[in-house]
Amino acid sequence: MHGPHSELPVIAGDVLARLRARRPRVHCITNTVAQAFTANVLLAAGAVPSMTVDAEEIGDFVASADALLVNLGTLDSERRHAVAAALDHAAGKPWVLDPVFIDRTARRAAYARTLTNASPRAIRCNRAEFEALAGADADGVADYAHERGIVIGLTGATDIVSDGARQVAIANGDAMMARITALGCAASALVAAALAAERDAFFATAAALIWIGVAGEMAAKQAAGPGSLTVGILDTLARLDADTLIAHARVT
Amino acid sequence: MHGPHSELPVIAGDVLARLRARRPRVHCITNTVAQAFTANVLLAAGAVPSMTVDAEEIGDFVASADALLVNLGTLDSERRHAVAAALDHAAGKPWVLDPVFIDRTARRAAYARTLTNASPRAIRCNRAEFEALAGADADGVADYAHERGIVIGLTGATDIVSDGARQVAIANGDAMMARITALGCAASALVAAALAAERDAFFATAAALIWIGVAGEMAAKQAAGPGSLTVGILDTLARLDADTLIAHARVT
Amino acid sequence: MHGPHSELPVIAGDVLARLRARRPRVHCITNTVAQAFTANVLLAAGAVPSMTVDAEEIGDFVASADALLVNLGTLDSERRHAVAAALDHAAGKPWVLDPVFIDRTARRAAYARTLTNASPRAIRCNRAEFEALAGADADGVADYAHERGIVIGLTGATDIVSDGARQVAIANGDAMMARITALGCAASALVAAALAAERDAFFATAAALIWIGVAGEMAAKQAAGPGSLTVGILDTLARLDADTLIAHARVT
Repeated sequence: MHGPHSELPVIAGDVLARLRARRPRVHCITNTVAQAFTANVLLAAGAVPSMTVDAEEIGDFVASADALLVNLGTLDSERRHAVAAALDHAAGKPWVLDPVFIDRTARRAAYARTLTNASPRAIRCNRAEFEALAGADADGVADYAHERGIVIGLTGATDIVSDGARQVAIANGDAMMARITALGCAASALVAAALAAERDAFFATAAALIWIGVAGEMAAKQAAGPGSLTVGILDTLARLDADTLIAHARVT
Repeated sequence: MHGPHSELPVIAGDVLARLRARRPRVHCITNTVAQAFTANVLLAAGAVPSMTVDAEEIGDFVASADALLVNLGTLDSERRHAVAAALDHAAGKPWVLDPVFIDRTARRAAYARTLTNASPRAIRCNRAEFEALAGADADGVADYAHERGIVIGLTGATDIVSDGARQVAIANGDAMMARITALGCAASALVAAALAAERDAFFATAAALIWIGVAGEMAAKQAAGPGSLTVGILDTLARLDADTLIAHARVT
Repeated sequence: MHGPHSELPVIAGDVLARLRARRPRVHCITNTVAQAFTANVLLAAGAVPSMTVDAEEIGDFVASADALLVNLGTLDSERRHAVAAALDHAAGKPWVLDPVFIDRTARRAAYARTLTNASPRAIRCNRAEFEALAGADADGVADYAHERGIVIGLTGATDIVSDGARQVAIANGDAMMARITALGCAASALVAAALAAERDAFFATAAALIWIGVAGEMAAKQAAGPGSLTVGILDTLARLDADTLIAHARVT
């Protein structure tokens, strides 16, 4: 692997090592479908999750957290209050927006757009969600990232990470990963964890998507279906190391 | 396999093939215990789940969904509002009622009875729940189904599906399946998915219960306990095909 | 194994056999992250879980339950109302308090302290949570248990169970267990299930922590990581018997 991004697999390994050494606390406002798997993915990677969405206590959790995830799945009024309270206490802390399913409801899309004004370091979404957010297709990722000063991690068959100036394509993963609920949500949580260990949000976002892409691809080779793939992703993530990332990452 | 229902395993295979081709969207109002497993079961079968219960956005999700599940587990006021809003947007779309645990609380049973007036295509429940709903034991299934014009899928050691005129017993499954939470809830979601691929609600309900019964039985043969059974059911469901269904279904 | 607690592994086997024979209903007010895994752990052990947190229907569930779990994770106003309604209907029934993360928020700690006045039979927590609750370190467990008349199950690398007069250390388990979300929450639910089968709360709490410690340790030997460990714990718990507990329990 050579070229402009040949350093990214090495960086992905570095960030993972730092994450495991620091064991950052990641507070997740996420949907109830994704909570358990997201917590297990964070624990497997080496982070410490918390998940309350109560507006009255979330401030205490965010105040002692190292990073924050705001995921809009199963968005209810309780979660909307939680987001407001959390962002009030997140000053200076990195946070990630995951605008789940904003392509399905104009109301949620409008809310996601207002949240982009609260300076997320990164947004992790799929192509349909990006289009609903940005009013542009995936070709507009660099422009949007540049204009907003937000790193975009666009996941799909190939993942794209852009901060406007730099852009990388990550070709890891496996089609079977689309058969597991909340994998994108968990990837967003990993981006938040990576931001707690790496200040450069482009490196952090790319690192997290390389971790989950490589782990998913390796686990898929052993899996008999989506059930054993879920198990294998957690097992692989917990054992992932720099050598494995360097050997398997496909970034261009 | 011969007799009045010898065509059902073939139909089950057909409906599954159509489901996979169409990838229907199934919106699930379901309890927080069951959400993740239900989503994974739907994805394994080939459907696309969504799960919000917020009354203000559920209309958008139901409007673009192909089928709806209303599951009464962990029933709170938010979910009651969600059900009302969802049924307002479900005109003409098939929906399934899963009256979880209505044998435990008269309040929930009364609510379930009012929901039967909103024309669910099918009700999937166990014997105790059916008795609480219908005020009759399992022998009254055909009468209830006929009178109400609702297909009943009654699960247990042997599953019974009846639309009043037609009735079938499905003897697949394994006792270990009772040791997995939310398997009944997930079966109800599969009925909803099947209704998106098959208009005849008797065929759709029988097909879904054959899928989960055969998948559970095959997975149980390989499983060391309820943990590996859960994994195995997802793996098996994703690979299930017409030949396997025809070879393994036990319907009379 | 000899000494003052050499009978505990035998008792752990006895309580498990009684639990499986009685199949007690355990109502769990628990956080949404932990619900599915907790339900699966209870089912694997032989108990029957229910999980609603709606204040209007929880009374019916608690009234027909054999034991109650009050877990403070993802504590919101709905759960606070549920706890009050549940305790109103729990007269004479054993209940367990799991004061999750009360070391993170003074508000939750204060609430946990008021709940200790409602006579839980046992509290299952980690060291940081115990310190936030009792204002004393782990050395003060016996004093706190004695003064309050509540059995304390303090989990960590070694678990401590104390009722003030009796104290035992349980050295089972595996470091990998800390990489699974909700394992402590599920252990607390097992304590509640054990209390439905054994009146002596010291024996019940020790039994439940021996079950999960032995199951986790045995599963960890076969596991490739936290994903397969989760699966293995459920499989092992379902097959656990008196001989295995006697052979593997390390209590002093």
